[in-house]
Amino acid sequence: MTKLRDVYPTDRVVLREVGLRDGLQLVKSFPSTAAKIEWIGREHAAGVRNFEVGSFLPASRFPQFADVHEVLSAVRALPSAHAVGLVLNDRGADDALAAEVDEIMCVVSATEAHSQANTRRSRAEAVAHVKRLCDLRDASDHRPLVNAGIAMAFGCSITGAVDPQEVVDLASALFEAGADVVGLADTVGFAGPNQISALVGRTQAIAGDRAVAIHLHDTRGMAIANASAAVDAGCRILDGSLGGLGGCPFAPGATGNVVFEDLVFLCETKGFATGIDLEKLVAIRDILSREMPAEPLYGQMARAGLPRVAELKAG
Amino acid sequence: MTKLRDVYPTDRVVLREVGLRDGLQLVKSFPSTAAKIEWIGREHAAGVRNFEVGSFLPASRFPQFADVHEVLSAVRALPSAHAVGLVLNDRGADDALAAEVDEIMCVVSATEAHSQANTRRSRAEAVAHVKRLCDLRDASDHRPLVNAGIAMAFGCSITGAVDPQEVVDLASALFEAGADVVGLADTVGFAGPNQISALVGRTQAIAGDRAVAIHLHDTRGMAIANASAAVDAGCRILDGSLGGLGGCPFAPGATGNVVFEDLVFLCETKGFATGIDLEKLVAIRDILSREMPAEPLYGQMARAGLPRVAELKAG
Repeated sequence: MTKLRDVYPTDRVVLREVGLRDGLQLVKSFPSTAAKIEWIGREHAAGVRNFEVGSFLPASRFPQFADVHEVLSAVRALPSAHAVGLVLNDRGADDALAAEVDEIMCVVSATEAHSQANTRRSRAEAVAHVKRLCDLRDASDHRPLVNAGIAMAFGCSITGAVDPQEVVDLASALFEAGADVVGLADTVGFAGPNQISALVGRTQAIAGDRAVAIHLHDTRGMAIANASAAVDAGCRILDGSLGGLGGCPFAPGATGNVVFEDLVFLCETKGFATGIDLEKLVAIRDILSREMPAEPLYGQMARAGLPRVAELKAG
Repeated sequence: MTKLRDVYPTDRVVLREVGLRDGLQLVKSFPSTAAKIEWIGREHAAGVRNFEVGSFLPASRFPQFADVHEVLSAVRALPSAHAVGLVLNDRGADDALAAEVDEIMCVVSATEAHSQANTRRSRAEAVAHVKRLCDLRDASDHRPLVNAGIAMAFGCSITGAVDPQEVVDLASALFEAGADVVGLADTVGFAGPNQISALVGRTQAIAGDRAVAIHLHDTRGMAIANASAAVDAGCRILDGSLGGLGGCPFAPGATGNVVFEDLVFLCETKGFATGIDLEKLVAIRDILSREMPAEPLYGQMARAGLPRVAELKAG
């Protein structure tokens, strides 16, 4: 049984590497299994502990996740590492539970329109799916955490504006259904920091002993500002991906997830020790450059490096 | 006579385009005078009003600013446009006053070590120069604003950490000397948002009826988060450059100023109407691509565009 506060304590920030899942969701070419395992191993050596390893989806449609069991095993072999898998249907839930992931990630849409368009089910049906997942989890031996992400929480590719009260109500229903973590996702990068601050604050207020996570895309350059606002509003779980890997299905050509390396620097400047060695982390980008040469990588820490002073350089 | 609150009111945000000056400080090739004037004209049509047009420096050493008088005239011909020129010495001050700029920008260093290394004068001597500039300004017919920027205010390329109290004391001395605006510059991109918030707050607290500006570089990807923190701390004057043009003399290869386009989007999400048309602004990047093809341009608004919803796209 995975205990929420062992993985996500309230007194420090936890950064989740979602590049192996969200970062690979849309790509045509992807790293070999060996390269994924090297990626995880080197990030673990740099101090990263929380890995979203893939999706439990049909390998025929998502070949990038065909090796999810092997990648999962690689994470589980590392000390203190935490392995997360995404499930989108009942069969995936069964697979994830059988594979004994530490955390099952699932997704619902903030708006009725997006829920229907994306999954052909209502938000109420999506919550019922999460409830069934949590019941299955409760009946399992391993009892992983359940993390329910709310896509389009700050703006929707179909409806545009999203009523924050509807997101708070949905978060409440997800906690009620048994989710340990509710994630607020700025899926299409509509949010600015004030909006993040307000919605994170309201969701934290109803979370009780559960946790709120934030999942940001840098579509319009606001991701680091939004992450800063989320931390200020009390959020302690943030997703990111190495090199900002991962596009957006609703905004072709747009940049991907918030850059993990820059997120680490942000948290450190805010007084939260991440335990992550930034220079080691930046060096791991070479795996992505080698395995996915067509994929653009983002982020400024990789260009500039840590702050340096002339005296140190000269010495 | 230029009145501070006519240009920089307290109840809205003013964004200063510094690309024509800071953006061109280090470049080898630069736009033609006609292209600069096109850049300014199109930004003015998009709603930008505040332009740092160049430096009053010897044309032999800084050919990119040889046309400063012509560019200045172009700004002055536009309704409600505000023209700023940088001066670094007494001769430049005389030229700027004779040219009747609306605002004279000057720079001092936050640390004694950087002041000596960069200008071979102490901070006290630098403040005395600002005082002399302000006295000359007071004796002039035109009486432009004086804006004194504090370079390395959040971290120094020589000393590393900077004592915020020394920056506040320096700001106080600059206001005392007659500066209308004191700018806090994160010259080498060391700052995170909490540091920005603290120093902007302390400087605002001693500013009285004068103004505090923020000048950010995106060296480590924190610039938009830092801008957000500055606005939250009460700052209403922010510098930026189109496409993030402008490197950093102390961090080779590092990115430049905070991207003007992304800064506009940030301010709009925070409820500050900038009066700037983002789509028109983004389109002006084509001048930079054409005139300075080797220069990398940054920013996410240019990739993603304004938030759009499927219904609007379909319609």
